[in-house]
Amino acid sequence: MSTQTAATNDVDLSIIGELAEKIQTEPATAQTTWQARTEWKGGFKSASHVRDHAPILTDEPEALAGANTAPNPVELVLAALGSCLTVGYAAAATGQGIELRSLEVDVKGDLDLHVFLGLREGHAGYGNIEVTTSIDSDADESALQALHEAVIATSPVGHTLEHPIEVRARLTKV
Amino acid sequence: MSTQTAATNDVDLSIIGELAEKIQTEPATAQTTWQARTEWKGGFKSASHVRDHAPILTDEPEALAGANTAPNPVELVLAALGSCLTVGYAAAATGQGIELRSLEVDVKGDLDLHVFLGLREGHAGYGNIEVTTSIDSDADESALQALHEAVIATSPVGHTLEHPIEVRARLTKV
Repeated sequence: MSTQTAATNDVDLSIIGELAEKIQTEPATAQTTWQARTEWKGGFKSASHVRDHAPILTDEPEALAGANTAPNPVELVLAALGSCLTVGYAAAATGQGIELRSLEVDVKGDLDLHVFLGLREGHAGYGNIEVTTSIDSDADESALQALHEAVIATSPVGHTLEHPIEVRARLTKV
Repeated sequence: MSTQTAATNDVDLSIIGELAEKIQTEPATAQTTWQARTEWKGGFKSASHVRDHAPILTDEPEALAGANTAPNPVELVLAALGSCLTVGYAAAATGQGIELRSLEVDVKGDLDLHVFLGLREGHAGYGNIEVTTSIDSDADESALQALHEAVIATSPVGHTLEHPIEVRARLTKV
């Protein structure tokens, strides 16, 4: 029976449990570092390399002078939030024995191009971001609502967007 | 000669120029909306759909109970920043007639897993993010440094990270 529980939603929570235990005895284990290396491919195209995975391709739509071969960087931010919340829902649902039949996260954001185009000073990024999650599950609505609130409150990408993050940048001429 | 300038770095700035002109007469044109739809694929895997492009796949590494089939959501954030800056460098360099031979952006971020794992309340996202840009170009260092500073100061993804963004989330049971 424990095997069956562990496989709910195809999530094996024992690994997360072991990690959480390890962090409680060795807090430094919780300090993780993540990296990406973006290689310019000409025009507005780029390929971002993460570990040994297939590169993440980006471009701009034709209206923004791109060749429209891939999503653009601001769309990648929305995909990062949607996929981060998905991990959260799958983990939290499994922890509570809630089986998910399907789960979809729609993410939408408004962005004013004035600053990026150099027409105005100020905030070049998203105004606000709207998330709509659709869950198909036998769990009752209050259990799903509690799950939803817990996931939103602990999302690494969600918090990265909601908090001001310091970006330190330097240039090397090669 | 104008044709040659327009093709520098494979960027056709005339399209951006026309957009900027249109925005100055019709400011509402600058208001853009972007979207992604993330579909859960079981476990910690998901596919994020943006317009009609190939889906952006994510997963978690095995240490975080994933199947390690793709980058994870917090890595996607770094790729979004790297690729956004790349668009900025390509656009600004072209505007100044600077030819780029190669351009690479390394992005690195530290993240404390305590909050995501439910072991502590607080900030679940990145601490700070470090960007190192490498540019190969005949332009002199001061011109490249000015370019770098202008790009960092107007990056939509950079500003999205540096400013607190409101994330509004709601749940629908289907």
